[in-house]
Amino acid sequence: MSPLKRFLEKFIDTPDAANAPPEKLPAADKSIHDDPLFGKKQNEEHACPAYTQLKFNFRDVGRMNAIIETLGRDFLTAMPTGAYKSRLGHIAFLHRRMHEDLTSTEVRRQLDQAQEHEYEHPQEWDEWDRANLREMSHLYRMYCCIPSELMEKRARLSYEGRRRHSALKKSGDWNEAKTFLTEQIDLHRQIADARCATFGEQSHYQMLMQEYMPSFTTQMVEDIFSAHKSKLDELLPKILDKQAKDTPPLPLTADYEQDAQMWLNRSLLRVIGFDFKRGGLYETGHNPVEGGTPEDTRLVISNVDEGNFMTSMKSALHEGGHGLYIQGLPRKEWRYQPVAMDLGAVVHESQALLIEMIIGRMPEFFEFLSPRLEGLFHDINASTLSPDNLFALKTRVKETVDRKKADEVTYFYHVLMRFELERDLIEGKLEVDKLPEAWVERTHQYLGVYPESHLEGCLQDVHWFVGKFGYFPSYVLGHMLAAQLFYTLEDEFKTLHDDIAQGHFSDIRSWLNDRIYAKGRLHDMDTLIKNATGEGFNQNDLLKHLKARYL
Amino acid sequence: MSPLKRFLEKFIDTPDAANAPPEKLPAADKSIHDDPLFGKKQNEEHACPAYTQLKFNFRDVGRMNAIIETLGRDFLTAMPTGAYKSRLGHIAFLHRRMHEDLTSTEVRRQLDQAQEHEYEHPQEWDEWDRANLREMSHLYRMYCCIPSELMEKRARLSYEGRRRHSALKKSGDWNEAKTFLTEQIDLHRQIADARCATFGEQSHYQMLMQEYMPSFTTQMVEDIFSAHKSKLDELLPKILDKQAKDTPPLPLTADYEQDAQMWLNRSLLRVIGFDFKRGGLYETGHNPVEGGTPEDTRLVISNVDEGNFMTSMKSALHEGGHGLYIQGLPRKEWRYQPVAMDLGAVVHESQALLIEMIIGRMPEFFEFLSPRLEGLFHDINASTLSPDNLFALKTRVKETVDRKKADEVTYFYHVLMRFELERDLIEGKLEVDKLPEAWVERTHQYLGVYPESHLEGCLQDVHWFVGKFGYFPSYVLGHMLAAQLFYTLEDEFKTLHDDIAQGHFSDIRSWLNDRIYAKGRLHDMDTLIKNATGEGFNQNDLLKHLKARYL
Repeated sequence: MSPLKRFLEKFIDTPDAANAPPEKLPAADKSIHDDPLFGKKQNEEHACPAYTQLKFNFRDVGRMNAIIETLGRDFLTAMPTGAYKSRLGHIAFLHRRMHEDLTSTEVRRQLDQAQEHEYEHPQEWDEWDRANLREMSHLYRMYCCIPSELMEKRARLSYEGRRRHSALKKSGDWNEAKTFLTEQIDLHRQIADARCATFGEQSHYQMLMQEYMPSFTTQMVEDIFSAHKSKLDELLPKILDKQAKDTPPLPLTADYEQDAQMWLNRSLLRVIGFDFKRGGLYETGHNPVEGGTPEDTRLVISNVDEGNFMTSMKSALHEGGHGLYIQGLPRKEWRYQPVAMDLGAVVHESQALLIEMIIGRMPEFFEFLSPRLEGLFHDINASTLSPDNLFALKTRVKETVDRKKADEVTYFYHVLMRFELERDLIEGKLEVDKLPEAWVERTHQYLGVYPESHLEGCLQDVHWFVGKFGYFPSYVLGHMLAAQLFYTLEDEFKTLHDDIAQGHFSDIRSWLNDRIYAKGRLHDMDTLIKNATGEGFNQNDLLKHLKARYL
Repeated sequence: MSPLKRFLEKFIDTPDAANAPPEKLPAADKSIHDDPLFGKKQNEEHACPAYTQLKFNFRDVGRMNAIIETLGRDFLTAMPTGAYKSRLGHIAFLHRRMHEDLTSTEVRRQLDQAQEHEYEHPQEWDEWDRANLREMSHLYRMYCCIPSELMEKRARLSYEGRRRHSALKKSGDWNEAKTFLTEQIDLHRQIADARCATFGEQSHYQMLMQEYMPSFTTQMVEDIFSAHKSKLDELLPKILDKQAKDTPPLPLTADYEQDAQMWLNRSLLRVIGFDFKRGGLYETGHNPVEGGTPEDTRLVISNVDEGNFMTSMKSALHEGGHGLYIQGLPRKEWRYQPVAMDLGAVVHESQALLIEMIIGRMPEFFEFLSPRLEGLFHDINASTLSPDNLFALKTRVKETVDRKKADEVTYFYHVLMRFELERDLIEGKLEVDKLPEAWVERTHQYLGVYPESHLEGCLQDVHWFVGKFGYFPSYVLGHMLAAQLFYTLEDEFKTLHDDIAQGHFSDIRSWLNDRIYAKGRLHDMDTLIKNATGEGFNQNDLLKHLKARYL
């Protein structure tokens, strides 16, 4: 007999436990009540015991997700380089665990029982519970068909890709990029394959895109983009003509000290209502990182450019818009539950672009900003810092090769070509080998310019390196939604323009909070938009906005 | 039929899966091979399949532990305050998960099979595998008897306690402290209860102490401390007499700029061999935090005192000694396995105190330091910075109320009284109510001085607030072991004193690495010490060292 067995027989009161069936794990209830801040509704017992249990299971899945956010943020900001491999291992491990939990037979059985219960006792289910169950089921379906190993690999490659992209931005080495991109694309095709088989779908790309934009199909995106393109193709020459006749804005020339810029960026975030008790804004060498959790929304922007404070400001406003959305999600009642998650990339980007591109480039915004800049940067009455000049600088339209520096009008073409290229890569219609060539062709076709290197070309974005295939369309769809929301805000608040000129954002923020942030996933996107604006998703408001601002 | 059921029947190839037995989760092997850096031996297949499986299970337990380290470090350093509650929830949740994994029926069965295999096929088990299995079994036994809820609560209270202690150091509010300490003591008595019942032991205190010092019983500590006390009681008056006749050292008076101090601290850590690629040294308002993992050893010390650079230096050297140990653990072969863990608090503290107290206060260390300080702090030929004066400052003996400021000689009495008090608190012989009184009494009895407030008294240490009952003795036992190791180092390296005077630590570090760090838990403490020094744990070397240095 082994020493352990002797030990067990002597001291533990169930000597035959080694042959007993697996013990029931301790109920999770206790721990919930130790955590009084979050999730009142999530902790309530429901008439359907399977649903109560589901809420506990998804709470733990949500916690793992939040932990991964923390590990990932640390990975990108403070972690010593020597921890690289082990941290990838931790993140990947936790992803596997989370995926195993989410797609367990237990969850499947509970989902089945809960949906049966909802069907038979509809009066026991309020709209939040129903929505929560619907989202649980949606998540289960999206992931149940994917092996845990693929999810683990995906998590690993995603963070590895961020690091690799940083290195590639120095080396510009296409061959290295190609090997890694091929691995990412193969992996994502496998994931899409699994979903296609499960859902009986044809479009691999759609199976990936729907993770980010559940309300859109590839066909819908193609239709919307094609309609927008034909109108923009007409509009752009007119705008360029008009601007050619204007006096060009004075370029920024001073040294804008880094600390002052970060003070400005944090102050602007405070002004729009970002809660620094539950978050922060940091500068790092990496690409900006949106995300975080409602309690820990640490936003990250890339390096400050001391020659142009508007670069980091743009990034801060963009991430700040994301941050407001995250902080406003329904955490008090539903923290960690699927219904408390954001509604996907289109709504997320709409919040970022509403702040960054729509509001953050209004003449009134620069009226607010200008005198404060003069003080901050010690340059009283500087003509470069006048409201008119700032507005002219930020609304100058020019066809360029760089998406991140693109203006509000030509931005669309950058997204359009990325959408087409990533769709073709995933559908197997474009070989990775041919990507640089295809990139250059489309850039010239849509923007009339040529990138001069891979860095100016297909290596500029981090998205594919982190495996975000199907994300790009959300920038344009989000821009459209942002314009639509802005017109509603204008109708709703007669003093809107004055408020912005004075840096008063509380009305805007609380309206967005009530209509968008606090709704989580209670409704699907169409219903959310209808409730907020009185009509469904309207792709035409962006064009209306561009005409108004640029012509 | 529910919508999900319809979905499942339509698309998933096992429509009856809802009634099937739990699926076997995907084997963990794949993910291991994606993580080539760590644990060659941990990933090798063993002749005993149950042991191979155990290695995978403990690897995941080890990963969770490492993740908790990251969450905890972030909690103490960079996290926004609003994330407090949710982060406690994450840490506690992961502790529960880890505990459930560690004490699962599956692990119990595998341990049993592996020990059977080891017994029947000893030739298949090398010494590392045997030690690893022994430590797996030890961990299982220590924790299997404790309900997961208690472990979850313990993790939560531990981090909560750190925060509360920070607040108490401002308020000095004993009533608030009392409530929290009572909760900690009750919880730890419950944990000790469970272990007493399992192991048939009487001493609650011992059941907690052995988590930190598996080789010691309460009785052994009492005997060692009592012998040391009676000798020190004789020695101390002689030392005080001698020092009363010496010219007192010149006190430090300049402003020692914070950044310069941190540069110095980091440089000293580099000199002793700390690897900054896998770690760092940070200043924070919190108590120092030892710990981290071999790949991510971010050390944290509390605020720099600009009036006295030796305060932060002491702390940096202490944490640096811990850090060297952590970084030297056998990660390449055994990462995440129990055999790759440190050997407990006595060995850990011996490494910290060897650097901080023994080597970091040698005349030769100050010979190395002095000229560099003159340059760093812009004070050429400063008499305060002379080697003799620095040595005199750091070896001045004085009975005080504050453990952290205690000298090397009277330090023992601080630890002795804490040991006695915590033992009595846990054994139920001392009520929390009576703690402040008992603290004052013992301080006076052993050190002849009176604290003037709770802050100078029983609120000064963080240990009990974080639930570390049974840790204090390791400071003295570690000090004894440090002295013993130092005498061995002196024998081994004839140039030791010269090396230190020149800042050459590579011999010391590689000797410690080979004899201590890289051994992990291959041996028990007694064997480790015997192999390193030629004799068992020797409590008398400390006294010999104190006599040599102070008389």
